[in-house]
Amino acid sequence: MKQLSVDLNCDMGEGFGAWRMGNDIELLSYVSSANIACGFHAGDPGTMKKTVQLALKKGVAIGAHPGLPDLVGFGRREMAVSAEEVYDMVVYQVGALMGFARAEGAALHHIKPHGALYNMAATNAVLAEAIATAVSKVDDQLILYGLAGSDLIKAGEKYGLRTASEVFADRTYQENGTLTPRRQPNALITEQEQAVQQVLRMVQEGKVVSLQGTEISIKADTICIHGDGAQALPFAKRIQERLTAEGILISAI
Amino acid sequence: MKQLSVDLNCDMGEGFGAWRMGNDIELLSYVSSANIACGFHAGDPGTMKKTVQLALKKGVAIGAHPGLPDLVGFGRREMAVSAEEVYDMVVYQVGALMGFARAEGAALHHIKPHGALYNMAATNAVLAEAIATAVSKVDDQLILYGLAGSDLIKAGEKYGLRTASEVFADRTYQENGTLTPRRQPNALITEQEQAVQQVLRMVQEGKVVSLQGTEISIKADTICIHGDGAQALPFAKRIQERLTAEGILISAI
Amino acid sequence: MKQLSVDLNCDMGEGFGAWRMGNDIELLSYVSSANIACGFHAGDPGTMKKTVQLALKKGVAIGAHPGLPDLVGFGRREMAVSAEEVYDMVVYQVGALMGFARAEGAALHHIKPHGALYNMAATNAVLAEAIATAVSKVDDQLILYGLAGSDLIKAGEKYGLRTASEVFADRTYQENGTLTPRRQPNALITEQEQAVQQVLRMVQEGKVVSLQGTEISIKADTICIHGDGAQALPFAKRIQERLTAEGILISAI
Amino acid sequence: MKQLSVDLNCDMGEGFGAWRMGNDIELLSYVSSANIACGFHAGDPGTMKKTVQLALKKGVAIGAHPGLPDLVGFGRREMAVSAEEVYDMVVYQVGALMGFARAEGAALHHIKPHGALYNMAATNAVLAEAIATAVSKVDDQLILYGLAGSDLIKAGEKYGLRTASEVFADRTYQENGTLTPRRQPNALITEQEQAVQQVLRMVQEGKVVSLQGTEISIKADTICIHGDGAQALPFAKRIQERLTAEGILISAI
Repeated sequence: MKQLSVDLNCDMGEGFGAWRMGNDIELLSYVSSANIACGFHAGDPGTMKKTVQLALKKGVAIGAHPGLPDLVGFGRREMAVSAEEVYDMVVYQVGALMGFARAEGAALHHIKPHGALYNMAATNAVLAEAIATAVSKVDDQLILYGLAGSDLIKAGEKYGLRTASEVFADRTYQENGTLTPRRQPNALITEQEQAVQQVLRMVQEGKVVSLQGTEISIKADTICIHGDGAQALPFAKRIQERLTAEGILISAI
Repeated sequence: MKQLSVDLNCDMGEGFGAWRMGNDIELLSYVSSANIACGFHAGDPGTMKKTVQLALKKGVAIGAHPGLPDLVGFGRREMAVSAEEVYDMVVYQVGALMGFARAEGAALHHIKPHGALYNMAATNAVLAEAIATAVSKVDDQLILYGLAGSDLIKAGEKYGLRTASEVFADRTYQENGTLTPRRQPNALITEQEQAVQQVLRMVQEGKVVSLQGTEISIKADTICIHGDGAQALPFAKRIQERLTAEGILISAI
Repeated sequence: MKQLSVDLNCDMGEGFGAWRMGNDIELLSYVSSANIACGFHAGDPGTMKKTVQLALKKGVAIGAHPGLPDLVGFGRREMAVSAEEVYDMVVYQVGALMGFARAEGAALHHIKPHGALYNMAATNAVLAEAIATAVSKVDDQLILYGLAGSDLIKAGEKYGLRTASEVFADRTYQENGTLTPRRQPNALITEQEQAVQQVLRMVQEGKVVSLQGTEISIKADTICIHGDGAQALPFAKRIQERLTAEGILISAI
Repeated sequence: MKQLSVDLNCDMGEGFGAWRMGNDIELLSYVSSANIACGFHAGDPGTMKKTVQLALKKGVAIGAHPGLPDLVGFGRREMAVSAEEVYDMVVYQVGALMGFARAEGAALHHIKPHGALYNMAATNAVLAEAIATAVSKVDDQLILYGLAGSDLIKAGEKYGLRTASEVFADRTYQENGTLTPRRQPNALITEQEQAVQQVLRMVQEGKVVSLQGTEISIKADTICIHGDGAQALPFAKRIQERLTAEGILISAI
């Protein structure tokens, strides 16, 4: 029997200057890959260095987490950026984090766009290809993380990148495989055990039950673990323990 | 007879978004290395990319020009930054520019700190070593440009980096080898021919006549060409032509 | 016969730190009101002060020109900002410019949103009302400048503000009174005399001929004079001279 | 017997975007004046509005807390800013906060510079006068808070402003009336009861015992309450209770 494995990824290094965010140190015990903010939506140089060092110490794979240039909005507000601007901001931010990785004698493992950039790249093929092009030109060994089934995953494949299809433990899915938009009721799974069951099903069977009750196929290479919120830490721990108990290896791709 | 050669360097890519500065395209015809702003004092991602592309097209060596995080002050105001903060901001900015170099299939050639950071590193050994350490850890093949005789050059040597001692055509020197501070009278050489003569003497004989009238030794690996001001372009042209006429090769180190 | 009058407004103070933009000093001789950038898309504190001082010296009315928080994009990229965020950014920026007006013993005269904020407020009633509310709460004597016929003008009227309907000399109009989008051919009037004729018609008769050839009514309280571009200055001069020659008084509202 | 009174002030609104800092809501129960960050070292527009609203609701006097333009350094790093730049940044920030005060139908009560700007203004008469000039020109009714005995208090008096001499509960004093620099041992008073006793003595007798053991005179119009740190809240409560128990009225000036 083939060993099942999955990656657990979490956004990290999202403080800025004197401001802290998230429990990076504790979360690093439960995840296998860290998406590190690169200065545009969060993450000053000092925070980036410390986060890279912490992740390496814990054996967690380090990835770039570039965002829109919107510090006050934490990169969560969509902006009418052009494909060229997206290409440029990705090259810049990946390069900056690569600086810290090199300084520690390490290499970047992956890239996952942040917030509004992630969402825009999921459904906008032009921006998705701008990201994939940037990655392929800066370091074509980086694994591109994107929403399972998204334009970003397709763009990564088109440009010859390895990709990781991301799924969510605490979000519900629509019949067509997309996430239920947050503004709709039932978008979130608030019951931890239900979230765990969804994750196990996605990893073990490649299936998820949509909000409409139908069973759909889904590719689950990496699971997004949210780092903020009161339940972030116990939930990360629970997911990690349950996956391990089921004999599933938690490991970066 | 050994071929004399010297590098002409110029700050470039110092626009930001919709704002332009300098005549990068024209100046690239006269210099052999470009110090490219990296986003902290000037230089947004789009400008960085275009400047890297232009320089490569012209065969001009590309270097990082990191500055203090002070956009409104153009990185010219000294800040009470710690050695660790300097290390971090240099790693970040060099990395970011390296991203654009890699995207073009090229490598960075050198690094020269900008403005207040350059000045602080000239006389503050702790900050100078922070810069040298950052460079040696991110890419120990980069050549460290610094004021001839400065703490920055010493720090580069201490950390095993190749260094380039920088001299100025249009600044006068003190008996102890330092630049006459700008606030003093006679700090600037406004007569172009006098500046040309100073440059020729520095390159051909390794000497400069101080403001006090004494002749002092100076190491002139690279000459700083200012890119702004009405006379920037004709002066760059003149320096280039005169050096060439004297049989001196203008070439990056 | 009643004296015809119209306001000529121009964006000003759009430099930032070491970067300059526009010919503010010359343009101030031709316009009657200045829209002064407030720091979010352009305009640092020093530039704001100097622009306020210059305008007052020339007897030109000073207005706030708040923009989206997007320095690198010059406030021209639409952002998914909430009504509350728009309210907050307008209060902040108007207040900041008011500080400089008070320091000079003067009062602000008007407000005109910049770039993407102006465009969004033209067709998004919720954002338009957020702006109008902010203005009415900070200083209900300010005149709200907005695109003639736009949601912003309607919001200003709803909140009891005086408004100024803005028209463009160098843009063509659609049958329904909207501007021809820039991406369409014929969006711009490049022939100066044609632009002058359009302005005269709008001011003298309250009419404009649409691109479709129909004559439509338009309210022309203020004419937007562009401050950038090679033709900005001669065109501003020409408009001012022709209006004056026609006996039309150029004056802030 | 005359009623003794003193002001308790605390820095507030020092979050930025998604980042929080301090327990503003709880602290507002113990202090009489709030120094509200204005966007340069902390405090985005939304945070400023909410902090103004909260303070007004609690009957706490609202003041501007302008800082150096250094978000990543939280305004704590000294910068080589000119007097004109300081004037400009104070006018801008006071104006911006005044916008929010006006929007709530309220007026600003005071101004206290933040961090490095506060420290620089304590011993640099030129910068201190730049601040006092800015305040006197924007709103000469504002009370200028500064370190007791500092150049800032002297500048305020020179420009005809009302001033409030600030003392610290948890810092030790030198024989010459200055604070013991933080880098020296014994700079901080870590024992709460000792801090309370120092405060009572300063308020009731106008005296403080220096680190050298001598008793010196000190003017204590307002006491700085730190809002961060685990002990901030219980200590604020204790100071407030002890002053009240001693019959001292806690009230803004």
